[in-house]
Amino acid sequence: MACGKEVAKEVEWRIKVEEEEEEDTLKRRVVGCMWAATAGVALKVWRFVKKAWELGVNDPRKFIHCLKVGIALSLVSLFYYWKPLYDGVGGNAMWAVMTVVVVFEYTAGATISKTVNRMCGTSLAGFLGIGVHWVASRAGEQFEPIIIGISLFLLASAATFSRFIPTIKARFDYGAMIFILTFCLVSISGYRVDELLAMAQYRMFTIIIGSILCIIVSVTIRPIWAGFELFVLVTGNLDKLANSLQCCVAQYFDGSETSDEESDNKVSEKELLGYKCVLSSKATEEAMANLARWEPGHGRFNFRHPWRQYVKIGASMRSCASCLDALIGCINSDNKASDEMKNNMRSISMKVGANSASVIRELATTMRNLTKSSKLDILVTEMNCAAQELRSLLSSYPNLVNASSHNAKCSAQTETTTSSDIPQAAKIEIPLMQIIQVITVASLLIEIVARVEGIVETVEELSDLANFRPEMCVKSKQHSPDNKISPDQQINEETERTLQMV
Amino acid sequence: MACGKEVAKEVEWRIKVEEEEEEDTLKRRVVGCMWAATAGVALKVWRFVKKAWELGVNDPRKFIHCLKVGIALSLVSLFYYWKPLYDGVGGNAMWAVMTVVVVFEYTAGATISKTVNRMCGTSLAGFLGIGVHWVASRAGEQFEPIIIGISLFLLASAATFSRFIPTIKARFDYGAMIFILTFCLVSISGYRVDELLAMAQYRMFTIIIGSILCIIVSVTIRPIWAGFELFVLVTGNLDKLANSLQCCVAQYFDGSETSDEESDNKVSEKELLGYKCVLSSKATEEAMANLARWEPGHGRFNFRHPWRQYVKIGASMRSCASCLDALIGCINSDNKASDEMKNNMRSISMKVGANSASVIRELATTMRNLTKSSKLDILVTEMNCAAQELRSLLSSYPNLVNASSHNAKCSAQTETTTSSDIPQAAKIEIPLMQIIQVITVASLLIEIVARVEGIVETVEELSDLANFRPEMCVKSKQHSPDNKISPDQQINEETERTLQMV
Repeated sequence: MACGKEVAKEVEWRIKVEEEEEEDTLKRRVVGCMWAATAGVALKVWRFVKKAWELGVNDPRKFIHCLKVGIALSLVSLFYYWKPLYDGVGGNAMWAVMTVVVVFEYTAGATISKTVNRMCGTSLAGFLGIGVHWVASRAGEQFEPIIIGISLFLLASAATFSRFIPTIKARFDYGAMIFILTFCLVSISGYRVDELLAMAQYRMFTIIIGSILCIIVSVTIRPIWAGFELFVLVTGNLDKLANSLQCCVAQYFDGSETSDEESDNKVSEKELLGYKCVLSSKATEEAMANLARWEPGHGRFNFRHPWRQYVKIGASMRSCASCLDALIGCINSDNKASDEMKNNMRSISMKVGANSASVIRELATTMRNLTKSSKLDILVTEMNCAAQELRSLLSSYPNLVNASSHNAKCSAQTETTTSSDIPQAAKIEIPLMQIIQVITVASLLIEIVARVEGIVETVEELSDLANFRPEMCVKSKQHSPDNKISPDQQINEETERTLQMV
Repeated sequence: MACGKEVAKEVEWRIKVEEEEEEDTLKRRVVGCMWAATAGVALKVWRFVKKAWELGVNDPRKFIHCLKVGIALSLVSLFYYWKPLYDGVGGNAMWAVMTVVVVFEYTAGATISKTVNRMCGTSLAGFLGIGVHWVASRAGEQFEPIIIGISLFLLASAATFSRFIPTIKARFDYGAMIFILTFCLVSISGYRVDELLAMAQYRMFTIIIGSILCIIVSVTIRPIWAGFELFVLVTGNLDKLANSLQCCVAQYFDGSETSDEESDNKVSEKELLGYKCVLSSKATEEAMANLARWEPGHGRFNFRHPWRQYVKIGASMRSCASCLDALIGCINSDNKASDEMKNNMRSISMKVGANSASVIRELATTMRNLTKSSKLDILVTEMNCAAQELRSLLSSYPNLVNASSHNAKCSAQTETTTSSDIPQAAKIEIPLMQIIQVITVASLLIEIVARVEGIVETVEELSDLANFRPEMCVKSKQHSPDNKISPDQQINEETERTLQMV
């Protein structure tokens, strides 16, 4: 028995030890897992913070905007800290703070647009709300909530519907929302709050103060103008398009000769794909153009600068870019062209590419200087001449198509019309397959030239609408002391560079 | 003297009469002008209202949305009208009304996203604000405003910066704004309001009630799901792209034979330009995909349906559409092709166009049925075969290029390589200029086929991600009672039709 007991004890002890060991390993595993998880989370957070920091470093204006929000909020919070101010408005100071938080946006145009919307929406709804409240209070206690309820339902539905109408959506979307909000608060509060007029007054007053504060901070401290952003975006996109076009034609016809280094390759790859920015910037352009019209004159732009025209320029650029996209697709396709055909077409095709690119670049320069370019007409003529040369080079190849048996009838007809005027010189045979790509590239280039002319037209419309001055006039004025070209052009160029980096 | 006086009187009288007459004409003119102005304004208003009404009639869901907003606001205003409710929350009921106005959006996804953002932002900022207030109140009266001010400045700046980070901007932009708002209100109010905790509690409570009310109204009464809208948009765009492609190829090769009537012309013009919708729907697709991920399962879509993939499908469609844009540009260019070349290429080119279109249409059907298509592989093979046929037709034209003098060297080289393997059959001469357009069209068609394959790939990725069932399985299931194909499919189709009309 004693022996049996000892054995049992030993077994118990062993089990205990094993259990403890198991627990230990479990603990160690759990701790290890937790460490790994923590490290993983920390690494992720670190990466996120690093990325965010880079975002700010690449465009320091983002940091500045954050500081501006901080400043505006600190200023508006004085309503609470400074006794005389707080005694004036009391708890309604909340509305000033709210206005600043909701209204302060990245660009001055957005801030002004929201401010104006907020003020108009609030005052309109305030008057209406008080009116409805007055009518309802005359109707007796029983009908009061019913009248208020019905008017609330109808006006809120109508205002909500107005937000679907494109013209209102583009300009007064926020105002319509604020209208609903204020109308609800005023007409409903009226049912419970006695001093409705005083309350409405205070709220309106604090909202106006908050709005003015926002506009002042937004416009005075390193302002970011939506108009200027739009201008930088469109002119930058013109440059990108020009680079992509020239780069693509050069790469195709020059082959790999030029790019002898890895870094070179990367740079040209980036240049080549610049046109994708053009294709994807429609929404940004439209938003910016909508905001820019709220802005006062700034830098070299007047109050009524024709910002909508920039959207049209953007559209014509996209049309050109989509043609370029097809061109690049054709170049990358399997079906390669023969070298000698490429050699024949090289100089003239590259000329077309370079000329179109310089027309686009000249357009960008025109827009940057706000002048009518004197060179533009010459450049467009040169581009058209080059395209014409390309066409005549193509037509100088009097091809002999070997009509296959099934279309003998049609081709017989041709023979009579065309064979006479083609010089019967030494004919060298090249299969059609080998020239298809070159021909496609050439004919897309001709199409691109036509679309570049579309861009020229829209930019010329802009120069008429915005009264660009002739170049000569500007050159002579640049030396005079009353130079209207803004002194912050250097800053502008800097920000532009930053923007292009993003 | 008397005579003189009379004359003077008469003159006076005449002047008076003339003055009166002048005044009369002036009055009449002013009244006329005012009438004209009023009539003009009335006409404009009438036109505006008519347009707005048509907007709603074309998509009755807009009217329904407005009614939903009205219902939600009427419900939430019960907080004021119904005494027991008002006694519970008092003036804080304002926050419930505000929440409904600000949070209620057109699609359920947007409403849910804003609701979640609002609740998270408010509670996070509320806790932080109370924490900061607690710390500040321990620091003594002198330091209290300084600590609150600095923390306000830092947190507001940081939260503002976070709104620039793309991932946060896409999902939590509104939450970050609400965070700043609540933090400001709580931490500043804390300086003046004694019962901070109670106030925070009431606000949080009313905001939650308003949010829940919004979600219930948005999801139960004829809900508009962002995911479903995205689905309809993408599948509709697929159809439009297919129609444009087929229509464009048919118009080019068939000429004006088919369109014998004005109305026919208009219809085909509309079909032809359908691809423009594809090119311009990037922003909408991205916005919808961002909202759709907030939505619960609805109709035939699960909660974690891969909505991001729809954006990828959209991108591949745009790539195809931009190629089509270039194709249409080339077709409309001055340089026309000869008829016999067109005749030669007609049947096979139209086959390529029709086959690509039917592949795209099959993709749309696949997506609509949420099934893996059994026909798709065959259709893709057919499309590729047609493209290959087009290629071989092109290569069956062994062209003789008349090498001009300046490239004699290069061409001499070619002669040795190519002349041997080209059959020297009856050669009929066609100038290269006359075939350029057809060749460009053909080679762009081949490129389009390649890009359609890109769409096929993205849709197949979708079918893998969303676990589309094989078609057979669905067919057999459709007859079983536990059919998971939603019963509101008919409604869906109806709304789809409406959406396509807009």
